[in-house]
Amino acid sequence: MSLLVVGSIAIDSVETPQRVEADVLGGSASYFAMAASFFGPVRVVGVVGEDFPDPYLQVLRSRRTIDTSGIQMAAGKTFRWKGRYAQDMNWRDTLEVHLNVLEHFDPDLPENFRDSRYVFLANGSPVVQRKVLHQIRSPRLVVADTMDLWIKTQHDELLELFQQIDGIVLNDQEATLLTGESQIIPAGRKVLALGVRFVIIKKGEHGAILFSETGMVSLPAYPVSNVLDPTGAGDSFAGGLMGYLAESPVQDHAAFKRGIAYGTVTASITVEDFSLNRYASTSREEIENRYQLYRQMLRVE
Amino acid sequence: MSLLVVGSIAIDSVETPQRVEADVLGGSASYFAMAASFFGPVRVVGVVGEDFPDPYLQVLRSRRTIDTSGIQMAAGKTFRWKGRYAQDMNWRDTLEVHLNVLEHFDPDLPENFRDSRYVFLANGSPVVQRKVLHQIRSPRLVVADTMDLWIKTQHDELLELFQQIDGIVLNDQEATLLTGESQIIPAGRKVLALGVRFVIIKKGEHGAILFSETGMVSLPAYPVSNVLDPTGAGDSFAGGLMGYLAESPVQDHAAFKRGIAYGTVTASITVEDFSLNRYASTSREEIENRYQLYRQMLRVE
Repeated sequence: MSLLVVGSIAIDSVETPQRVEADVLGGSASYFAMAASFFGPVRVVGVVGEDFPDPYLQVLRSRRTIDTSGIQMAAGKTFRWKGRYAQDMNWRDTLEVHLNVLEHFDPDLPENFRDSRYVFLANGSPVVQRKVLHQIRSPRLVVADTMDLWIKTQHDELLELFQQIDGIVLNDQEATLLTGESQIIPAGRKVLALGVRFVIIKKGEHGAILFSETGMVSLPAYPVSNVLDPTGAGDSFAGGLMGYLAESPVQDHAAFKRGIAYGTVTASITVEDFSLNRYASTSREEIENRYQLYRQMLRVE
Repeated sequence: MSLLVVGSIAIDSVETPQRVEADVLGGSASYFAMAASFFGPVRVVGVVGEDFPDPYLQVLRSRRTIDTSGIQMAAGKTFRWKGRYAQDMNWRDTLEVHLNVLEHFDPDLPENFRDSRYVFLANGSPVVQRKVLHQIRSPRLVVADTMDLWIKTQHDELLELFQQIDGIVLNDQEATLLTGESQIIPAGRKVLALGVRFVIIKKGEHGAILFSETGMVSLPAYPVSNVLDPTGAGDSFAGGLMGYLAESPVQDHAAFKRGIAYGTVTASITVEDFSLNRYASTSREEIENRYQLYRQMLRVE
């Protein structure tokens, strides 16, 4: 099935307590597309600047299931993000953000992408997210990500977006900010009541919780022995989830659980190295093995 | 099978963002025994002062599976703890601690408790924990809890205790303090390497992780819609775990997972009200129903 992601392609600089990696490939669309590409084809829409290193484009192109024809190059510099993680890796400070070409990114989808059935609107202004969505003729499953900035500055626009999408992914702090609820379960329920069909609250190393009409599912993260860099875990999670769902014949509750499990696995692979580096040695078989170990771990019998 | 808990019986005062409850029944042994009592008999060893309200003793006695004959009354006042929870309930400050009769508590086990096969040494000085353990003739499964105070002040005694017990339960911060590892998975592995057969790291609302020779199991908390008071969740978890294991014909990896699932359920019941109040309306059937829902939630198929 046709899966589309619209999001950022970035040059990241990441500081962890162990290491500093400067000017590496990042961005929500990159992480999403890489994770999703192990399940089926994925179309990427994004923008880079004239300074974007060709080898980084090759990282995405090297996965033959990633269609990079929707990545434009604009005059100016690529979006840059610089962050520093705390000792336990659960917290990070954004040290620098340079929107650059992303500032005026107003995606005009290629004609052959407009029939996409599965759509992930990565973190971005809800106004732009809606403009993208309106270019899709007949979407079957639309999921959006958001962040504190939009909750604070484009609250009403975000709520309007909620009426037009199926699901929203956000982290626990964002859910609290959006609902005023400090406990995660009531917060998730209140987000659900804002008009989406499902809500996924990402808790980083503590897993994720799905809220939907069918109920609540809390699943842990896949236990990773050595987290090198958590950047992109959330987008890789979404990529594994939607990559799986786009290829699944059904999208019922059981399929969503499988999707969350696959997203958990792809996120666990991402964090084992900086940037998308870990994927250079990842195969569909490795993902499947880890998925089966994860299922087995969760089986109480 | 014969299950013994040695721990505190307390009078707690608890402040949450919603409510203040003063002078309620608390203590590690109380929470453990109550949770375990739904699975089979449990013997309690602890001490109270002359001020201990008789109705609180009745709360424990009202469960006919709880043997309270090992609860001594000593001259002086009962152990008191006062704490305040933060908005999201994941953090608390201890406002007051009055050890009172607990200060010189040096448990001399009743003769008829010395044949106990399953033993939970609730949080206490590792010196006292070892003295208790030496009174047990032939224990089959010994689990201890500990806290930052003992890790800092009785580090060597704690490590000696590790050589004599089967398992240790501790929270993520304690595991970090004990090992110097800020990431939870390497921290758990290092605790395991200190000489115990298994380690359970409790993560509160984020569940628990078991580390053993057989591998690692991460399980989420049971999603609770309205947490009123997290006090006692850890001891209730241990009570459900060991209450189940003491009645289980086998103690293999699968049985441990079932035990952790039962402990997760009893902890989830505890936090739905202050003190042990929620247990006034709890039945074995309710625990079983919640256990089945939890198993089902974790089933990826």
